[in-house]
Amino acid sequence: MFEKRYSAPGSSPATLLPHLVDGKTRKPRIQCIEYDAGHFEEREITDIQGLISHIDNHKITWINVDGLGDVEALQTLAAHFDLHPLALEDALNTGQRPKTEQFPGYLFIVAQMVYQDKKRNICGEQVSFFLGDHFLITVQEEADYDVFNPVRDRLRAGMGPIRKSKADYLAYALLDSIIDHYYPVLECISESIEELEDDLLEKPSRQMVLALHEHKRSLTQLRRLIWPLRDVVNGLLHDASGQIAEPTKVFLRDCYDHTVQLMDLVESYKDITSGLMDLYHSSVGLRTNEIMRVLTVITSIFIPLTFIVGVYGMNFAPDPPAGRTLPLNMPELYHPYGYIGVMTVMAVIAAIQLWLFKWKKWL
Amino acid sequence: MFEKRYSAPGSSPATLLPHLVDGKTRKPRIQCIEYDAGHFEEREITDIQGLISHIDNHKITWINVDGLGDVEALQTLAAHFDLHPLALEDALNTGQRPKTEQFPGYLFIVAQMVYQDKKRNICGEQVSFFLGDHFLITVQEEADYDVFNPVRDRLRAGMGPIRKSKADYLAYALLDSIIDHYYPVLECISESIEELEDDLLEKPSRQMVLALHEHKRSLTQLRRLIWPLRDVVNGLLHDASGQIAEPTKVFLRDCYDHTVQLMDLVESYKDITSGLMDLYHSSVGLRTNEIMRVLTVITSIFIPLTFIVGVYGMNFAPDPPAGRTLPLNMPELYHPYGYIGVMTVMAVIAAIQLWLFKWKKWL
Amino acid sequence: MFEKRYSAPGSSPATLLPHLVDGKTRKPRIQCIEYDAGHFEEREITDIQGLISHIDNHKITWINVDGLGDVEALQTLAAHFDLHPLALEDALNTGQRPKTEQFPGYLFIVAQMVYQDKKRNICGEQVSFFLGDHFLITVQEEADYDVFNPVRDRLRAGMGPIRKSKADYLAYALLDSIIDHYYPVLECISESIEELEDDLLEKPSRQMVLALHEHKRSLTQLRRLIWPLRDVVNGLLHDASGQIAEPTKVFLRDCYDHTVQLMDLVESYKDITSGLMDLYHSSVGLRTNEIMRVLTVITSIFIPLTFIVGVYGMNFAPDPPAGRTLPLNMPELYHPYGYIGVMTVMAVIAAIQLWLFKWKKWL
Amino acid sequence: MFEKRYSAPGSSPATLLPHLVDGKTRKPRIQCIEYDAGHFEEREITDIQGLISHIDNHKITWINVDGLGDVEALQTLAAHFDLHPLALEDALNTGQRPKTEQFPGYLFIVAQMVYQDKKRNICGEQVSFFLGDHFLITVQEEADYDVFNPVRDRLRAGMGPIRKSKADYLAYALLDSIIDHYYPVLECISESIEELEDDLLEKPSRQMVLALHEHKRSLTQLRRLIWPLRDVVNGLLHDASGQIAEPTKVFLRDCYDHTVQLMDLVESYKDITSGLMDLYHSSVGLRTNEIMRVLTVITSIFIPLTFIVGVYGMNFAPDPPAGRTLPLNMPELYHPYGYIGVMTVMAVIAAIQLWLFKWKKWL
Amino acid sequence: MFEKRYSAPGSSPATLLPHLVDGKTRKPRIQCIEYDAGHFEEREITDIQGLISHIDNHKITWINVDGLGDVEALQTLAAHFDLHPLALEDALNTGQRPKTEQFPGYLFIVAQMVYQDKKRNICGEQVSFFLGDHFLITVQEEADYDVFNPVRDRLRAGMGPIRKSKADYLAYALLDSIIDHYYPVLECISESIEELEDDLLEKPSRQMVLALHEHKRSLTQLRRLIWPLRDVVNGLLHDASGQIAEPTKVFLRDCYDHTVQLMDLVESYKDITSGLMDLYHSSVGLRTNEIMRVLTVITSIFIPLTFIVGVYGMNFAPDPPAGRTLPLNMPELYHPYGYIGVMTVMAVIAAIQLWLFKWKKWL
Repeated sequence: MFEKRYSAPGSSPATLLPHLVDGKTRKPRIQCIEYDAGHFEEREITDIQGLISHIDNHKITWINVDGLGDVEALQTLAAHFDLHPLALEDALNTGQRPKTEQFPGYLFIVAQMVYQDKKRNICGEQVSFFLGDHFLITVQEEADYDVFNPVRDRLRAGMGPIRKSKADYLAYALLDSIIDHYYPVLECISESIEELEDDLLEKPSRQMVLALHEHKRSLTQLRRLIWPLRDVVNGLLHDASGQIAEPTKVFLRDCYDHTVQLMDLVESYKDITSGLMDLYHSSVGLRTNEIMRVLTVITSIFIPLTFIVGVYGMNFAPDPPAGRTLPLNMPELYHPYGYIGVMTVMAVIAAIQLWLFKWKKWL
Repeated sequence: MFEKRYSAPGSSPATLLPHLVDGKTRKPRIQCIEYDAGHFEEREITDIQGLISHIDNHKITWINVDGLGDVEALQTLAAHFDLHPLALEDALNTGQRPKTEQFPGYLFIVAQMVYQDKKRNICGEQVSFFLGDHFLITVQEEADYDVFNPVRDRLRAGMGPIRKSKADYLAYALLDSIIDHYYPVLECISESIEELEDDLLEKPSRQMVLALHEHKRSLTQLRRLIWPLRDVVNGLLHDASGQIAEPTKVFLRDCYDHTVQLMDLVESYKDITSGLMDLYHSSVGLRTNEIMRVLTVITSIFIPLTFIVGVYGMNFAPDPPAGRTLPLNMPELYHPYGYIGVMTVMAVIAAIQLWLFKWKKWL
Repeated sequence: MFEKRYSAPGSSPATLLPHLVDGKTRKPRIQCIEYDAGHFEEREITDIQGLISHIDNHKITWINVDGLGDVEALQTLAAHFDLHPLALEDALNTGQRPKTEQFPGYLFIVAQMVYQDKKRNICGEQVSFFLGDHFLITVQEEADYDVFNPVRDRLRAGMGPIRKSKADYLAYALLDSIIDHYYPVLECISESIEELEDDLLEKPSRQMVLALHEHKRSLTQLRRLIWPLRDVVNGLLHDASGQIAEPTKVFLRDCYDHTVQLMDLVESYKDITSGLMDLYHSSVGLRTNEIMRVLTVITSIFIPLTFIVGVYGMNFAPDPPAGRTLPLNMPELYHPYGYIGVMTVMAVIAAIQLWLFKWKKWL
Repeated sequence: MFEKRYSAPGSSPATLLPHLVDGKTRKPRIQCIEYDAGHFEEREITDIQGLISHIDNHKITWINVDGLGDVEALQTLAAHFDLHPLALEDALNTGQRPKTEQFPGYLFIVAQMVYQDKKRNICGEQVSFFLGDHFLITVQEEADYDVFNPVRDRLRAGMGPIRKSKADYLAYALLDSIIDHYYPVLECISESIEELEDDLLEKPSRQMVLALHEHKRSLTQLRRLIWPLRDVVNGLLHDASGQIAEPTKVFLRDCYDHTVQLMDLVESYKDITSGLMDLYHSSVGLRTNEIMRVLTVITSIFIPLTFIVGVYGMNFAPDPPAGRTLPLNMPELYHPYGYIGVMTVMAVIAAIQLWLFKWKKWL
Repeated sequence: MFEKRYSAPGSSPATLLPHLVDGKTRKPRIQCIEYDAGHFEEREITDIQGLISHIDNHKITWINVDGLGDVEALQTLAAHFDLHPLALEDALNTGQRPKTEQFPGYLFIVAQMVYQDKKRNICGEQVSFFLGDHFLITVQEEADYDVFNPVRDRLRAGMGPIRKSKADYLAYALLDSIIDHYYPVLECISESIEELEDDLLEKPSRQMVLALHEHKRSLTQLRRLIWPLRDVVNGLLHDASGQIAEPTKVFLRDCYDHTVQLMDLVESYKDITSGLMDLYHSSVGLRTNEIMRVLTVITSIFIPLTFIVGVYGMNFAPDPPAGRTLPLNMPELYHPYGYIGVMTVMAVIAAIQLWLFKWKKWL
């Protein structure tokens, strides 16, 4: 739940802490793509310093750092591209709210991508963008799944405007891919909710309440991510730093529409889960009511009858001891029609009760 | 539930996917109406290219595409009228939020029409408008019902200002027809809610909770459509592109009032359904209470009595074995007034309990 | 519930439909009052055309149309005073949201008056104002009750500033009268709620929940009317058309305060009804709890005792057949202290249970 | 509840109605304090006209009218100080929302003071201020308690800036005293809520729900008073009429902070009462659950056992009539181990049930 | 709960009241740190007057007053640094809302630090800042825990920009430390909530509801502190007084992000506690339902059977007295298959009921 990484309270600002995997820092996978309209080169990087010395300012350079275990590599990059230590700290302290900040020479964007892992759990991962004129540095947590692959494919294929545009279009394409990946996650939740809805009316169970609760929580969390993401896209749309070119803004407007739609979907799914929760409660209430009714009717009919048969099971001696003759105890027992009479009386009582409950609409 | 069509995450923007019916694309029905104050011509189109070459810029051309299965036809239209691929993508990816976007030379408007099908289910259908100076292209999903027919009749009849006005008035008339069609849908929901209200107090049942839940959901969905529709109309009302003429704006103001009223109605129906839900719950609670009361009273009266008769059904031998005479077990059984006495005691106990419950207002 | 009148979807804007009473249109009652500081004349009108030809522009003319059955009369008035057909349509299509619209030469105001009929039902009625420089046309639904009478009396008496002021002051006086009539309606609801509150704690019943539900609904409806009415008064207060003179605005500010107070009252009554609903539910819950407790205690005490007496009612034969002597079945029955002993054991069990329930604070 | 006094609907604006005590108007207590830095004079006034003729414009004159029964005295004051009749009407029609209005030459301020009477009921009283350059007229309802006394003492003592400042500082001091008197009232509610909280968990009762409901209502009412009071102070803080001097504004800022804090306190107390209400409900629910559990366990254990002993209480004759020997009815009754066997079987059944309930965690 | 200290209503503004510990005022601990880039001096102060006379305006002087018992010392400081009495009053009247106020020559900031004491209770403490060009006076309540220690260590170590910057950076560092200390408090609550979540589904108990209620309350209180704290940081970020230098604002932006994240976390934890509360209620409801079901089934099966065995326990005499032979009372008792027959009938009844309950899905 508490996903926010934070430095020790009172520590100096911009304290950079590497992420540990099993208690050890792990080398990130660093990938560099250099391209322009006619050129495309893709490399795995191990020597940061070497990479930096060969950057060609006439091409677009996209450096993707996959893993947060190597603070020094990031600091080397930061030194070259003049990245602010506070921005670097935000990139490392995952669990940030999506935001966009303007620094001299580049824009700093934090976004959260979501995807489903193999067990269909919803996972989140922070992606930070440093967007300069001819470079884009993306820093992401190490994960099994990478939402950037379709964009890499488009870059490789060189189709569409992506190779002909600047780094801002690349940033848009990546952001758009992140946002688009919210749809399948939502779709999966929606399908699960629909299934629950059908089951809920059949046989309400505790598992379904738990599942609804889980969905509600996922939706609350998605909402927490999408809401500021919308602000990020809106911020880029109204960017005045000049980092975002006008043609890219048309595409960002489309992107913005998607975030609004996502919010819309999340809100309506939340409404629906709340409605289902209510429905579940009223369903359980009605059920209890129905059961109570049956219990009442059966009990109310048989308890007086059981009392009557009990009366005639009492062992009062018919003959008073010592010659006294009156009154005779329980004379009904000795009446030839006693048994039939009592049975009839009980049948009548039961019938009256049944009629009464029918009349009261309790049956 | 998840009505939003979306392209694969990370795919290139403006990817156009045709709608499939039974796995196949189907030719849309394309209709073209050309008119001015003195002229009216209505044609079914099969050859888009032919249509385009004969467009007369001195008249208003309304092209209505009914069905989303033919991407090429749309691209041909887009090429001639210079429509942006992102707008075309939105027209195809149904389930968009109503919105209005300004492009050079035309306005792009997305609206959602609603109507009830033969089984009284509420159906939604996306309608996209491309509104230029002398043309209007409407792209809608294929459906049994068409809310545009009354406007076509008005065009054919040539009454009112519709034939004398520009394309913007036609767009207003179509939008107004879409908005007006929300009224009968709401009216139908309102009637159903009123019926439910009467029944609810008579005999609350699970079916009614389901119906209320269903209405609440429909109203939530209508609200999701009307709210942005209001913004669309407001956007057109304050349009600065010059696409909407001043005289049309007076009519759009009327249209805007309708959307505000629709919101108002939806909100109050939502309030009423929530109130009925509460009423239902308190009704069920009261019922349970009443049943409990009867159960308690009957049980509380008869259980002690049954115990007493049980006591006198015990088989304690009156004569102690072996010459011991004292105490005599259960002497009441041999007392001449034993039976009458026990019956009287039980009657008194029952009477006291009845009086107690009456005093406690449990009866 | 669905009080909004609307024209057929897709019909031409400004379609005027007369109101029908028992399937027939009925002539409205038209009254004309002409006045200035020194002059006052009040007439019933049957001939609209005649009225129009004699209007004196140096005096204030107030034409009050009482009934919506005569479209032609309204169109005649509209033709003379140049009233917009859309405004006329709004005056006829009752159930409008209160609103104010500016047209060249006049202001169009829609308000909703409320009053209680003889059976203390809350009734609403739409009043439309066309406020020009020297004329005021009010169009209202036909009703038993007219909130304008006190203003007519003030006009007749000629006291206060009303006769010396322009038509805008008259419009203010009428609007003020409409707003003031909300107070007695609210007061009546408030008295009813207070009565309910006292009863609720004594003996909660289903009737009271229904009454609370009814009040909540009335308050929701009043809120729907007062909220836009406040905007109307605020709009007039900040009117820039020059139709409202500065001295009248001081009075409108007072009027605005009243609408704010009305909102305040409605909101707090809504809060109170919600609170009472909650109180009712917790009252019912507590009651159920109390009843359950009694049931549990009685059942828990007597069920084990009944079991014990049942044991000694079993007919196990004391003498084993065929000379076997051991064990003797149910020897307690033949023990001289058997009966006393069993009774004592049962008393002890009951006492322990009572003490246990007391200790658990269930009694 | 309906504390708002209002004139008859439709009556002329600024209709002044005196307050009646036991059906009669009562003379208000009028007190006049004249002061400047070196001078202080305090008088009870009976002759308004005489007072007016002796007002010294070089000193600050504070006229405090205590009681709303004398309309003429107020009108005399109004005539001299040029007070607007609508403001006078608001001063008389108690139950106004706190507000501030600017009139030429003076500010009109309405505030609501609250205090607790001897029975610890929360009472409200309207205070109206007419603040001119060198005069302050306060009009308040007649009450046992006067929150102005501490300010009078400060005036008499002449300490602090109060005697050296203008009338605006006096108005601030009075307003501050009114606002400060909300604190003890809130503190009292908070103490009562804390007591309730401790009791709630011990033994939930209906009285506590009523008390919580009462507090919630008081808090709602206080909120209704404080919210507009905050606006009043904010309005004075940003006063542009020049009636409020800059040095006083520093003090008003402090005053404003107090209103914000009051809102904050009211909101959090409301939250806490809502939380307690919820806690109460869940407490009652849990209790019901616990009681149900005991009932179920006892009933479920003893009902089958009672059935078994009932079986062996049946009077089936062991010897078939007329020489038929098979089957022997109820042979268990004649078995030497019959009784022990049945008792053992019942003990085993009870033990199994107990284990089952333990396993299901119902015990 | 009512943590707000306030002066007696109506008392003069800026009345300074010392805090009492056990009824006595206690000397505060005053610490003075003087530093610049090359110099650092730390002293405990007893003689305020002496301190003041030696202040070196070329260095940054940080005076930290730890305890609110000595009004005179504060007044001496106030006299030297020209601090406004109203600000001093706010520093003494703890329980203020976080706020920032601009005075000539310095900024006055009120913040609330939170920390957990040894028993893991959440404690709050007010810290007031007087931030001038070359001085910073912090006034805090006396407490065991001091969140300023890490900043003192950084000052002593002289690392980072803290010694090279002005007093505004020191104020930022202290504020940042206060804000950072909210994280561990939230983390602790979050862990406790997670534990509760796991337990809730296993065995809902009253203790857990109380714990949830407690957490909800803590979160509400934290929210009340963080919300205005965010405004404080935002106010400093947009400070126009020149007290905050531009380079410090970059760091304040980071600080602002933290407050936004804190709000976010608090809101989502509140959501989660509400969700758990709901889950608890539905869990209890489901449990009650399940128990009811068992009760119904057992009761419904055995009550009719107990009635039947009761019937055959009645003592109706088989032989009518006095030679009458017909009808024979209870002939079943004398039938050779009577016992077997009755047992079979009862088994059939039980089986039918079981099948019925299974079919109704009550089992």
